[in-house]
Order: sequence, then structure tokens, then C-alpha cells
Amino acid sequence: MTHPEQPNAAALWRDVVVLREQTPLVHSITNFVVMQFNANVLLSIGASPVMAHAVEEVADMARIAGAVVVNIGTLDAQWIPSMRLVLETARILGKPSVLDPVGAGATAYRNEVLAMLLQEKPSVVRGNASEIMSLAGMSGATKGVDSTARPEAAIDCARALCRDIGGVVCVSGPQDHIMDASGRFAVLDNGHPWMTRVTGVGCSASAVIAAFAAIQPDAWRACLTAMAFWGVVGELAAAKVSLTGGGTGTYATALLDISGQITEEQFCSTLRVSYR
Amino acid sequence: MTHPEQPNAAALWRDVVVLREQTPLVHSITNFVVMQFNANVLLSIGASPVMAHAVEEVADMARIAGAVVVNIGTLDAQWIPSMRLVLETARILGKPSVLDPVGAGATAYRNEVLAMLLQEKPSVVRGNASEIMSLAGMSGATKGVDSTARPEAAIDCARALCRDIGGVVCVSGPQDHIMDASGRFAVLDNGHPWMTRVTGVGCSASAVIAAFAAIQPDAWRACLTAMAFWGVVGELAAAKVSLTGGGTGTYATALLDISGQITEEQFCSTLRVSYR
Amino acid sequence: MTHPEQPNAAALWRDVVVLREQTPLVHSITNFVVMQFNANVLLSIGASPVMAHAVEEVADMARIAGAVVVNIGTLDAQWIPSMRLVLETARILGKPSVLDPVGAGATAYRNEVLAMLLQEKPSVVRGNASEIMSLAGMSGATKGVDSTARPEAAIDCARALCRDIGGVVCVSGPQDHIMDASGRFAVLDNGHPWMTRVTGVGCSASAVIAAFAAIQPDAWRACLTAMAFWGVVGELAAAKVSLTGGGTGTYATALLDISGQITEEQFCSTLRVSYR
Repeated sequence: MTHPEQPNAAALWRDVVVLREQTPLVHSITNFVVMQFNANVLLSIGASPVMAHAVEEVADMARIAGAVVVNIGTLDAQWIPSMRLVLETARILGKPSVLDPVGAGATAYRNEVLAMLLQEKPSVVRGNASEIMSLAGMSGATKGVDSTARPEAAIDCARALCRDIGGVVCVSGPQDHIMDASGRFAVLDNGHPWMTRVTGVGCSASAVIAAFAAIQPDAWRACLTAMAFWGVVGELAAAKVSLTGGGTGTYATALLDISGQITEEQFCSTLRVSYR
Repeated sequence: MTHPEQPNAAALWRDVVVLREQTPLVHSITNFVVMQFNANVLLSIGASPVMAHAVEEVADMARIAGAVVVNIGTLDAQWIPSMRLVLETARILGKPSVLDPVGAGATAYRNEVLAMLLQEKPSVVRGNASEIMSLAGMSGATKGVDSTARPEAAIDCARALCRDIGGVVCVSGPQDHIMDASGRFAVLDNGHPWMTRVTGVGCSASAVIAAFAAIQPDAWRACLTAMAFWGVVGELAAAKVSLTGGGTGTYATALLDISGQITEEQFCSTLRVSYR
Repeated sequence: MTHPEQPNAAALWRDVVVLREQTPLVHSITNFVVMQFNANVLLSIGASPVMAHAVEEVADMARIAGAVVVNIGTLDAQWIPSMRLVLETARILGKPSVLDPVGAGATAYRNEVLAMLLQEKPSVVRGNASEIMSLAGMSGATKGVDSTARPEAAIDCARALCRDIGGVVCVSGPQDHIMDASGRFAVLDNGHPWMTRVTGVGCSASAVIAAFAAIQPDAWRACLTAMAFWGVVGELAAAKVSLTGGGTGTYATALLDISGQITEEQFCSTLRVSYR
């Protein structure tokens, strides 16, 4: 039996089934580097991606979408009004929104823009440890867009951020920590180091969170299922690729393959989740 | 023997041979999500892709290109003058042009922009059923960028659109319908459902149409060959991938492999074309 | 024993080892078509990519990066101030910079912008023969973004360009020619024709040059190692793919695999370098 606030693997898997049945539309404003991979990841899990950034239409897209995701990887002044508008539209309509603060702390400009976007109270923020620490106003020593801080050190920052946005924060890394303003706290121990050797794997995690949030009204649980799913996929893909002697190119392909083919049995036997 | 207005597979294959010999330059203004895949598809069929969107140079690019393609997937107000200019330049120079109305009907903004672009009378419009219905001013119930209307229901709309632009319209889907203002009408029955599970496969069809239109002066026939080629590639790639248990990641790779390796015998024995 | 100005394969390999140890941050302003592939190539060789183009932050990014690369493939008037600023920042800080003049000669606009960017004296310029000839003010008969001039014919142009920028020029093609203002001149004879059948392989060479320049203070030698590495990877990947009957899709994947897995023995036994 599973505690409702401490769902086991089988409980999380039910959301995967629902996602595949409902094929939710996910509206992304994301960065140029990862657009193609993110769209293919969303398709592989059973979601329907739409990417649009024109301020003239993003509110309309958010209205027909089940969830929105904003990613600032290739930040551009002209896109910021659209990023704000899509987060605001989601908030007003009560739709889930995800913010991926790529490179937070790397430049003053990113920090200013992120401070503004956080005012729109996204449902979920997912970042690596140094990004989350930077968001919470502490020094995270961000080196470009990769994390140089340990996820554990970011947990206090993440808790403060949860209270600030009144929502869910995920600190991703070798372990993923998913927490919300009510104090729920899950730890995931899946994944593989190669997930940092293919561009867009982290950004895709944020897109996957949005997809699950479109079909699961509890944003903390949606985030948990998404990170659980993606971490298990990353681990199974690495196991598959290592059998054939492939490298990171083959791994990127395997992520998409496994994401669409993973079964309940594989998911449940691989997932390592715990609660604090 | 093949009727000149009802070319059989062997007749269509001759255009593939010509394309591979002539390596036409195709100028694309397309969306961010699919640019890389579209460029790789064009290279795989033997064409030479160039992507440029600056209003300062798009007319120059259109002048040296054999054909142009405009795709509004990630529409941006600043790109619209370039989209108009490249279609206008092609029209004035008598070069073939293809319009891919991604997400037509999804937002009012898209519809306005598309109405404007249609005034430039592109040689070919290719879209899914709901996009074509939306273009023709009817309700197609577009959900994001995926089609929710049956291709057959869009045929009357497509015929009206043919008359409006004085050109060729392709309604793509499980079957592809290719028609022109003079009443020619071909139906293709190739492809595979996985073609909708990899981003950019539809957009690449439009790029492939432009490539064939660069070497085949009859735009209807160029569109027919292109859709025939791409549908057969999609079907053969699925057959190959299913043998090895691969998923949609492997499938995207296989599309490029097969596109460059397909032989006349494979093409002719797989193609299912009929005429009305 | 190796002459210091004529390094042999083992000497060049030492830079590969250093790169993998130091994981330098490479800041790219590059074109939309190749961003994902370039990022994955940089990750595969052991570098850390960051892509940012907002004029508000590119100087900050250049400051934390080990090297910068500017690629004008999808040129946009709004990006030009950022391109200038990042090259200027690198020059002032004494950091290496690479300019990839994609499509030089194809339009008057490209030529004007390139003339302006060359004033910032990039450390290295890498282009195909017609691009380099166009940069040096001669007719290179550029067809879109592919070269129609023989690399050898471009060498005089490249020498003039070396003197103009006071730096390194690489003319890439079936053979790669790497020269600097002091008269050093290396010729590489690796690679494979398929490197022109996957989009972004040339642009990635420029990114790889930047990565090596971040860890090797001699820009000529960094360029030499980079082109040697990438050419050998391209050749080994083709050999691997031809064994399995794959095409250009599989080849793109193999480039990333081999790039991360290549050993000193493979590199040294495959490299063909000579000096003039």
C-alpha cells in the first residue's frame, strides 16, 4: 500500500499511462539549442509539442495548451515579453507552468530577467544546484550553464524558493530533490552521467515536467513522476548503449527510443525513490 | 506505358535521378525546431540547403536558389517581411515556391499572416487537413500543430485553395492528396504513423517538394514525386527500424539513411499512387 | 623527435588529453541550423558549450569563457552588435576567438558584415575555399553555403588574410590548409566526403578550434590539432558506418560517438599531416 503523499513506482506509472492516453499539448518557449530534441522527447513520451514565441500569439497558444514551459537558455530581450505573458496567462487560467532558469548566475542579465519571471509564480522551477542557489539570491558559482555546486547544498535555497513562488522546486543532479511549499520532499536516485553529455537532456526534463503537469493536477506529483520517468529512461538508455559500445551520439538516440518503449515493469524495477 | 498526366513510379523516379545529378540549391525560411533536420533531409536527397532570413539578403539568396520554401512554425513578426519578400522574389523570377502553413487555425495571428503570404501566390501549399481547411476559411479545429481533421474532409477546401493561388495544394496525412488548379488529382498511400512522432518530418516534406520543384518545372508533378519519395522513405525506414526493435530516435536516423540510399527498385515496388 | 613547429601526431594528441582534463567553456554565437549539433560535438570532445547572443550579456559570457566562436550562418541584423562585441571582448581580454564566415560571397550583405567583423581581428578564421577567397576580396563563386572553389586556389587569399588579421587561417576541404602570419603552414589529408552531407560538420570544426584554442595558447597549433582531430574522427566514423551499411543519419551519430571514444593509438595511426 502506498501513502498518498509518498507514491510508489506503480502509483507514479499510472500518470505515464494517462499521459500516453491524453497526449496533452505542451507549449514551449525554449532555447534554440534544444528545441528539436525537446520536441522529440515530448513526442516520445506521448505529448504533443508546440513551440511559439511571438508576443502576438503566445497567450492564444497557452490557452489551447495543457501546460507551458519557459526556458531562458538563449535569452533574447525581444522574447522576454512573451515569456512573461505566457507565464502570466497560465497563472490567470490556472494552468501549470514550468520555468527552467538555464545559466542562472552566469550573467547579471540572466539574474534580472529571472527575478522578473519569478514574479509570475511558475508552478514548478527546475534547475541544477547552482542555478537554484543563484535564484535564491545566494552564490552558486555557476560556470556557464553547467552546475558547479552540489545538489545537497542547494536544498535550503530550494526550500526558500518554494515559499517564494508558492510552488514546486526540483534541484536536479546525480540525485534529484523535489519539494513543495507544504514540505513534501522526494529524492530520486536514477539517471546516468551521460545525461550531462548530450545537450538538451536537462531542458527536456523541464518539458517532461510540463507534460505531466498537464494531466496531473498535483504539480509536486507531476514533477516527481516526470523526473522519475526521465531519470529511469536515462539509466536504461545508458545500459542499452553500453552493451553495444556506443557513445553519446547513440545515447541521444536511445533516450528517445527508450522513452517511447519503456514498460511498467522496467520503470518499477529501476526506480529508486525515497521520501523525507 | 504511362499517361503523361498520370506518371507511374518509374517516371517519377527519373526526377529523383535528376535531383541527385543537379544538387539544386534550396533556400529555406523555416522554423527553429526543424532547421537541422530539414537541412539534413535536403542533403540526404541530394539537394543543397541554405537557410537565411535577414531581410537584407533573402532576395539575393532566392536569386541564386533553385526554389524557396517558407514555413511559419515559429512565427516571428520580424521575419514576416522576409517571408513575403522571398515569396515575391520567387514569383517575379518565375522560381518555384512552397508555403508550409504550420499551425494554421491555431491562433488568429497565424491566420492573418497566412492570408498575407497567400497573396504572394506560392507555387505549392502543403499542410495537414486542418491547416488546409483553415487556410480555405473553414473551421479545421486545429489543435496546436497537429491535425484533428480527416484529410478527405479537406479536399473541397484544397480545391478552392488551388483556384485561389492558381497552383498546387497537397493535403498530407495517412493518405496524401495532391491537386492543382487544372483538376489533376493524385492520391498517395504510403508512409507510416511514426512520421508524426518525429518533429520536422512534415516540414521536411515541404522542403523536399521545393527541391524537386527546382529540377521539375511542372510543380504538380514535382510535388507528387516529392511526397511519393518521402512517403516511401518513411515506410521503408519504419520497416527497417521495426526489424531491430528501435524506437522513434532510431527512426529519425533511419529516415536520413534510407533517403540517401533508396534505389529505383525499392521505390517502384513500394509506391502506391492512384489518380482521380 | 618532433620539431616544435612541426608537431607530430603524438604531440598533437597531448592537447586532446589536456582538453579532456580541463573541459574549457566555449561561448558560441552560431547559426540556428547547427546549434544542437555543435553543442553535442563540444560535449563529445570534452568541452563545455554555452550559447548566448543577447547583447546585454555576451561580454559577460565571453569573460567567463575560455574561447569564443562567431558563425554567421543565419545572419540577423539584430545579432551583429553581439557578434562584434564578443569578438572585441575576446581581443581586449586576450582570449582566443574564431570566425566562421559561412556563405561569404553568397550575398552582398554577408560580405559587408564580414568586412566589419574582420576588423575585430579574430584569432582564427576557418572557411571553405570560396569563403576564404571571398573574404580576401576575390571572386570565389560561392554557391549558397557550399564551396565551388578548389582549396588550393584559395591559399594565396588565405595568406593575405593571415597578414590582414595577424592570425591563423584554415582553408578546409578535401585537404585542410592551416597557416599563420609567421609563415607556418600545415596540410591535413584526413576526412571523408560524408562530412559535407551532414549539416553542421564544418561549423563544428570551428567550434572545435575554439575549444582547443582555449587550452593551447598557440592558436595555429590549436587550429591544427582541432582540424586533425575532427578530420580523423570524420574518417573513422565513415569507416565504422560503412561496415554496417548505414547512411548519413547513422554517420552523424557516429561522429559524436567516435569523437568521445577515439584513442591516441587510433588518432596517431590515422592522422596524415605534412608541413610546407
